[in-house]
Formats: sequence, structure tokens, C-alpha cells
Amino acid sequence: MFVAMNRFKVVAGSEEDFEAVWRNRESSLKEMPGFVSFHLLRGPHDAAEGYTLYASHSVWQSHDAFLAWTKSENFRRVHKNAGDNKAMYLGPPVFEGFHPVEGA
Amino acid sequence: MFVAMNRFKVVAGSEEDFEAVWRNRESSLKEMPGFVSFHLLRGPHDAAEGYTLYASHSVWQSHDAFLAWTKSENFRRVHKNAGDNKAMYLGPPVFEGFHPVEGA
Repeated sequence: MFVAMNRFKVVAGSEEDFEAVWRNRESSLKEMPGFVSFHLLRGPHDAAEGYTLYASHSVWQSHDAFLAWTKSENFRRVHKNAGDNKAMYLGPPVFEGFHPVEGA
Repeated sequence: MFVAMNRFKVVAGSEEDFEAVWRNRESSLKEMPGFVSFHLLRGPHDAAEGYTLYASHSVWQSHDAFLAWTKSENFRRVHKNAGDNKAMYLGPPVFEGFHPVEGA
């Protein structure tokens, strides 16, 4: 199991636009070998800094399955417009990959 | 669905001790209503800052189920020693709760 998260700081007031981008995208992740699940998650709102934290959260059967996706045509296609809508964000997304240590 | 994560910055060199604390703890989360899954996740190592990021990652059927757990005797029991081992950490853990917006 491997958990891949991308953290987005979305400028306060742009939350609905950000969610719409994700709702309206084309996704074919489910066709990828080793794909388990995907969720877009809404995290805490930071009023002082003026953003809401979001995280894309995908689970893969293995780190190798995730890496194979990042090298695929599917990955290139879904990320080709990733630089759009920069005004929505406080800084670039931050990727974090996680390996399970314990649990079930 | 609700995802509860606690982020721990574990001082470089203390990773094995930190993992041992989790492996050796008593857990009865599975007895809690609405509990779905728990994993301790190991994230990226930050060599410049001298820590490895870990996250406890639990999934609940609903935010209400999570909140009920935080008010339970089970929660008090498993957190009663949470202040131990402070030398392992760079700062306190940071809690982040997430609500799914999109996905399956």
C-alpha cells in the first residue's frame, strides 16, 4: 500500500472554483494497474493565513504501481493543465508520499 | 467519510523508536462505532530540517463518529501518555481533519 497526497493551499473565497475544477476533470485513474482509491479532501480553513487546505488523496497497491502511473500517458494528460488557475493558490502544491508502517 | 490525520515530525535517528511506540501500543479502535481503518504512515524525510514526517491516518464513516471517539474513554486511555517521548519530536503533532469533496 502507498498513499500519495498533494496538498493545496486554496485562497479563501476560491474554494468553490477549486472544487469545480476537480469535479469537472476527466479522470481515468480507475483504469491504472494497482489503483485502489481517490478522494479530494477538504481540510482545515486557516483564517489568519487566508486559505483552506485541500489534499488529493490516492491509495495504490504499491509504491511501484504509483511510480508506473507517474510515468504513464494518463499522468501526462491529467497534469497538462496543472499550471492553470494559479491565482487560486497560495504557492505550489506540496507532494507527500506515505508508506504504511503499522495498521490495517 | 472523514479522514483524521495527526502529523508528527520525528527527529532524524528516532524513527525506529517512534515506530516501536506505535507497534507496542494497545489499541481498541476497531471496537468504536463508525471506525473504518487506521494506518501509521511514514512520509518524506527532510534532511535539511533533520526529521522524518509521519502521519497517523484514520478513516471514519462520518465526522460525528470521529467526534464521538474523541469524547470516549477509549480516546482518553490511548492518549494519556501522549506527552511522553517528547525528545523524539520537532514540535507538537499537528492535527488535520478532512472531509471528502469528490472521489470514490
